[in-house]
Parts: sequence; structure tokens; C-alpha cells
Amino acid sequence: MKQINASIITIGDELLIGQTIDTNSAFIAQELNKIGVWVKRRVAVGDVFEDIWQALDEESRHAEIIIITGGLGPTADDITKPLLCKYFGGKLVVNEKVLAHVKYLFEKVFRRPGPILETNLKQAEVPDICTVLFNPRGTAPGMWFEAPSKSPPKGETSEDSLNTKKIFVSLPGVPHEMKGLMINEVIPRLLKEFTMPAIVHRTAFTAGQGESMIADMLKDFEASLPAHIKLAYLPNYGMVKLRLTATGDKKEKVEKELAPYFENLQTLVKQYLVSNEDEGLESVIGKLLKAKNKTVGTAESCTGGYIAHLITSIPGSSVYYKGSVVSYSNDVKENILGVQPDTIEMKGAVSEETVREMLKGAIKNLDVDYALATSGIMGPDGGTEEKPVGTVWIAAGNKVKIVSLKLNLRFDRQRNIAMTAGAALNFLRKFILENE
Amino acid sequence: MKQINASIITIGDELLIGQTIDTNSAFIAQELNKIGVWVKRRVAVGDVFEDIWQALDEESRHAEIIIITGGLGPTADDITKPLLCKYFGGKLVVNEKVLAHVKYLFEKVFRRPGPILETNLKQAEVPDICTVLFNPRGTAPGMWFEAPSKSPPKGETSEDSLNTKKIFVSLPGVPHEMKGLMINEVIPRLLKEFTMPAIVHRTAFTAGQGESMIADMLKDFEASLPAHIKLAYLPNYGMVKLRLTATGDKKEKVEKELAPYFENLQTLVKQYLVSNEDEGLESVIGKLLKAKNKTVGTAESCTGGYIAHLITSIPGSSVYYKGSVVSYSNDVKENILGVQPDTIEMKGAVSEETVREMLKGAIKNLDVDYALATSGIMGPDGGTEEKPVGTVWIAAGNKVKIVSLKLNLRFDRQRNIAMTAGAALNFLRKFILENE
Repeated sequence: MKQINASIITIGDELLIGQTIDTNSAFIAQELNKIGVWVKRRVAVGDVFEDIWQALDEESRHAEIIIITGGLGPTADDITKPLLCKYFGGKLVVNEKVLAHVKYLFEKVFRRPGPILETNLKQAEVPDICTVLFNPRGTAPGMWFEAPSKSPPKGETSEDSLNTKKIFVSLPGVPHEMKGLMINEVIPRLLKEFTMPAIVHRTAFTAGQGESMIADMLKDFEASLPAHIKLAYLPNYGMVKLRLTATGDKKEKVEKELAPYFENLQTLVKQYLVSNEDEGLESVIGKLLKAKNKTVGTAESCTGGYIAHLITSIPGSSVYYKGSVVSYSNDVKENILGVQPDTIEMKGAVSEETVREMLKGAIKNLDVDYALATSGIMGPDGGTEEKPVGTVWIAAGNKVKIVSLKLNLRFDRQRNIAMTAGAALNFLRKFILENE
Repeated sequence: MKQINASIITIGDELLIGQTIDTNSAFIAQELNKIGVWVKRRVAVGDVFEDIWQALDEESRHAEIIIITGGLGPTADDITKPLLCKYFGGKLVVNEKVLAHVKYLFEKVFRRPGPILETNLKQAEVPDICTVLFNPRGTAPGMWFEAPSKSPPKGETSEDSLNTKKIFVSLPGVPHEMKGLMINEVIPRLLKEFTMPAIVHRTAFTAGQGESMIADMLKDFEASLPAHIKLAYLPNYGMVKLRLTATGDKKEKVEKELAPYFENLQTLVKQYLVSNEDEGLESVIGKLLKAKNKTVGTAESCTGGYIAHLITSIPGSSVYYKGSVVSYSNDVKENILGVQPDTIEMKGAVSEETVREMLKGAIKNLDVDYALATSGIMGPDGGTEEKPVGTVWIAAGNKVKIVSLKLNLRFDRQRNIAMTAGAALNFLRKFILENE
């Protein structure tokens, strides 16, 4: 079966000056991948007519499906819609359904006083040669264009570009609007348009060991994989994700074929294995606590609420997570967590003794079965010769036992926070498993 | 002066299946922009030999500087180094300085027992036709290649590709290693290699008004801008960033020319203006509190520590931020914040009354001048007919006054959390300004 390739074009100067991090492409890629479309390339270009036009030309040589996001807002720096109209040879006409929706949003939802702005009404104009993808979440509709394949430039040949219809889809750049249109409009239409091969991914993740050591453990395994099964390593803050990808005709068949390889992979890295799903430590811990019907709380100094944020990012976490005392100041450590002023005075806020007392206070005052505590120096300032930036103490425990761990990190502030959170969650996970 | 263009190529299947969000490109783009290089395109391709090769060919037609990240790890899915060697016609040789550094890292820093793996030693091999960029933060060095311009394919002409030397730089994908190499090696070398035009950006941001209304306020202003000054709108969680970009020969001259336009812009959006720097609300609030020598604390239910995380992301925040009680459970609201059980029973945990009592408890127990409290239903579950998902109460206050605000959000969990945090921080900012 022929592989269907896609290319994602994101439009906007903000992407090119580094002001915005592109999260839309990752979402679009995930959704296309699920239905068996291989995203071959992602390209970002600025709000420049020639650059957008050239990207449309080039990407249609690489792929059958071209998804475009951004450039559809109401402001003057958005030039995409008239460009698409010209590119596909149509003219702009008012779409009555979109117009009624724009009016409804401004009058009933945004409740903005005064008449609707002309720039907003213009969002109801669409090229007459596209299929309009209705966007209930916002004012800018999606647009679906079909075009016959263009021949490649002289001197180049491209298998993709021969005799294949090309689909171009333009979506707004606002993430939740783009997501709604992808799921409700684009994916169902693509499934009707193409017969897709199956792509199956299985991901496991390990913690506490580096990428090269994990790769060494899997050297023979990797060499033994058939050509249509690929192994990838994705290191991330002290963890390594291991992803097996297989392609074939039928999803069920590919899944069945992949299963023993994935089992084998898990066995080989058993001592560092955290999960055989593509999830985070916070999700693994959540499942563990739910299964045991236990609760957890946190006492965070240096991580400043980041561990609480990770845990509460999981829907339904209120079942096992009672809360956190973010004790950024020593006052809060003493007054709410009951750390002894003497301990802080004698040993310092960043010390094994302090973090153990923070943990005891969290168990007691948050009234939880398990707790996790952190205290450290995240930088760039605050380090001393004895305790340089990157010095971190972590404690995990329950009512009867406390264990502690020291880290010596050497990164920037954001990464030190993320590394500490990851190491702390893994330390808690191991404590829960070993102290049932 | 000739505009110098760059293109950023990121390599890795994880980018194309949406498993990883590309933050490296944003950093590289920021740094290039600062020295006056215009990033014309960003491209992501998979770990596929032909696709990487083709990207090198294509991007060198678009730009003089091609920065490549990723694909340099010790594992078998990283094919970039031999490819670059072949592309530029060199052969792999051991670099003694890199080899000594790899050995030092494994023996003294990672302190891994046993002999160093062959895959790690291989990281000291570099193409003999490149300049090695020493990477003190990791095992994979950066590589700097210079190549004469290739002619464009027949039938195409490109101004960029004529008579210009092309610079290709390959950097590891690990963010803090890439960042060190960009700042310490790549930028200084590029400044020696090219005479750059000046690009100056000035960014202001507004809160509490939508993109189209802000654009309407700036319609005449925008129309009056000279050709080399551009205005862009960047909406982000209830805020709109307004960026003016000017280009010219000399930085000082461009800055001077841009200044009155930037002043004018700020005056026009005065009533919604939050800051005239490219920063977040948490940074604006930090400066405000530092200037007044006041402290703040938070009591977070639905935001689950995310506001604390934003505030503590700012270096030095411990001067004004004392901490947070993340009261995810009602127990913690009652026991640590002193919310009356009756209030929760009668009015619910998500109510104006509860959030005001949370605020009072935060002021008292965290012993702070100002506080901020949140309680809401973030979804996807937990909504009722009376209080659907997206119902949020926010309170801000000091010892003598409390104000509260209700939000009705309609997004997914992650976005509801981010929107609540943004709205809450802006609510606190206004309270501080109005209640000195």
C-alpha cells in the first residue's frame, strides 16, 4: 500500500523570531499519525507573500496532504486567505453560515457593545473554490482545497508528485479552534479521501539510566528488528522513552506482529522500566495511588508548585492528591509545615534535615498517606561554595518511614526545576512500590 | 545592506509524530534575530537519510546560514553525522580534545562504572572538513561547515543562492548543550563572518481586550507606518502582544527611529497596556512588588500550583513571594486556610464565598501583604448544570479589602488552567495598582 505523506506549514513571523513555540504542529502530527499518515516535513514561514507561495509549491512536491495553520486572524499581518484564493484561482465570497456565526459570537457570546468591526465581518469571506470547514469555536473557518498535482520543476523528479490529487487544508492558528477542526472535520474527510496504511507505535519509558546505557542494553535487540519496525530513543529530563514503530496493511495485523517485540523490549530494560505507555511519571503515580486507594501531598520549596502542577494536570487527580504547601519562604516552612527554626538555623533551608521535617509536616498537616518534599538552589543566584546552584534535597515517605536523596544539578533555572520534579516523582514512585 | 537569511533544520522522527514539541528552534531564532539575521524558514524532517539530504539542498537555496539540530546522539537512530560527512565530502576522524572530554565526563562527572561504551567513544569522531565547536556541556560536539554556493535546479533562480558562501552548523538536540554552543561558539563566529543589518523589535502587551478590538484601535497607526517598520499581533491566553519590528543599517539609528512609533503605540492602547517589555504577567507583578517592598502569597485550588510555578519561574522571586497553599481537597481548604466547613457545604467549593475565605486564610497564614485565590472546575469531568466545566472564581486582596471575579471558560483542561492563571495574575496586578 502506498504511504500517504503529509507536510505541515505554519505561518507567522512570531515563529521565526522565536517569540512563540509551535505546539500546533505536534498536535496535527499526532492526529495524522493515528490514521496512518506519515508527516514527512514541518515547515514554518513568515507573513511574507512569496515565502508562503513558495512553501505551498515546495511542500506539494513532498506530500499529498498539506496542512496550513495560522495567518487567518482579523489583523492586517494575516495575508494567507487572499493568497490561497489567488493560488487556487478563486475569488472571495461571503459565506452566509459563517457570517451568521460571526454575528452570533460577537452579539451573544463576546457581548461586545457597538457594531461589529469590518475586520471581523471579513472573516466570513472565503474563496469560492474551497470547501468551508465550519469552526464553532471561533470566527475564522477552515478551508479545504483540492488541486491536481503540479509537475516538479525541470531536472527534478519526485514520485510523490505524479498523478496524485493534492489536498490543502488551511486552519486557524488558535490552538483550540485548530484542534476542533482537525478532529471534527479534517480527519474524517481524509479518511474518506485516502486508503491509509497502518502505523502502530508502542512506547515504554525508563528512568534512572542514560540514553547510551539503555541503547547498549538494546543493541542486539535493535539489530534483530525487521525493516518495517523501527526503534527510537527519546531522552527527557532523566528519563528515556523507547518507541517502537511498525507499518503494514492492517492495523490489527501490525499490532499483533509488534506485540512480541514490545514484550521483549520491556524485558530487556526491566530494571529501569517505569511504564509501557506513552505517559508521564505523574500519570504512573496517579494509577498506583488509585489502585491502592491512598493519598499523597507535597511540600515544595525549590520546585515552587511545579510538582503540584504536574500532578494536577491529570484529570481526576483530586481523588488521590490533597494538595501542596509551597513553602518558598522559611516562615512558611516553620509556620505551616512545622519545621524547627533551629533546624533551618543550624543546617540551612537546603539540607537533609529540613527536607525531612518538611515531609513530616506535609504528612501531618495535609493528612495524607504519602508525601514528597523538595528544597534546593535553582539559580542563577543563591549558590555558595558549600552549596552551589543545583544542590537539591528530596524526601519521600509515609507515616512510618522517610527516605532522602541529594541531587547535584548543573543546568539553568527552568531545567533544574524540571529535573528536580522528575527525579522527585520517580523517587516517590519507587518509595510507594517498595513500602506497601 | 544585504539581508542575511537563515534556515533552521531540526531532525528527528519524534518531531514528526508529535511526541516532542520543538523548543530549540525558538531559542535559535531569538539568538539569530538579536544579531540581525532574519530566520526565513524552519523545517523539521525525520531520521531519514534522503529527507535530511534534500532538506540541506533546499534550505541552502533559501538561506546563507543553515543551522541544524538533533540527530547527534549516541544511538543508532541518529544518522546525521555520517550524512554530513558524505554531504560535504569528508571522512570521520577522531578529535583528541573531544575524546579526552568524553572520557572525562564518563569517568569524573557521570562516574559510571565499567569501560566507556563504544557508542560514546564514537561521539569523538568528527568529519575532517569541519571546524569542531567544543561542547563543554555534553559529549556531542557542534560542527561548522563552509560550502560554496550550489547553483539552483534548472528552471529556478534564486537571488540568495548566487555567489554567496553558505555556512552550515550542526548542533546537538539537547537544549542546554545547544544553547551553550549557540551563545559561545555560533553567534561570535557568525558576527565575524557576515556584516549584518540591524533588526530591532519592541514589544508591548495588553490584557483584557481581544485582538480585533486592539487592531481597530491601531488601524490608522498601522496604515501610517513606513515600509521598513512592521506591526504584528500575538494573542496569548487573554493577552495580546504587540510587536514593532524595524530594519536598517545601524542599530542605534534604527532604535532611535523606532522609539516615537513605539511611544505612540503605547499611548493608543493605554487603557489595556500591561507592559512595554516582552515579558509575562508574573514578571510585571514581581517588579511591582519589589518596587513597593511588598509580599504576596497564593491559595490555589483549580490552578493546582500553576500560578506558584509561574511566579517562581522568575529568578529572585523569593524576595516577594512567600508561598502557596495548593488546597486541592476541601480538608486542606478547611484545615490550612481556615475556610468554614459550612461555607463549602452551603455554597460549594467553587463559589465566591469559598474563594474569599481562601484568600483571607492565605493573607493570615502565609503572612503576606497581598494574596490571590482560585477555585474552579477545569474539566473534563466535575461539571454540573448549575456550575459547568469552566466555572471559576478568583479573589485578590490585602488585609483590608477583597475583590472577586467569575470566569466562564470553555476550553480543555490545560487551557482552562492557563487562562485562569493569566486572568488571576492580571486581576492581582490591577488590585495592587488600585490599592496602594
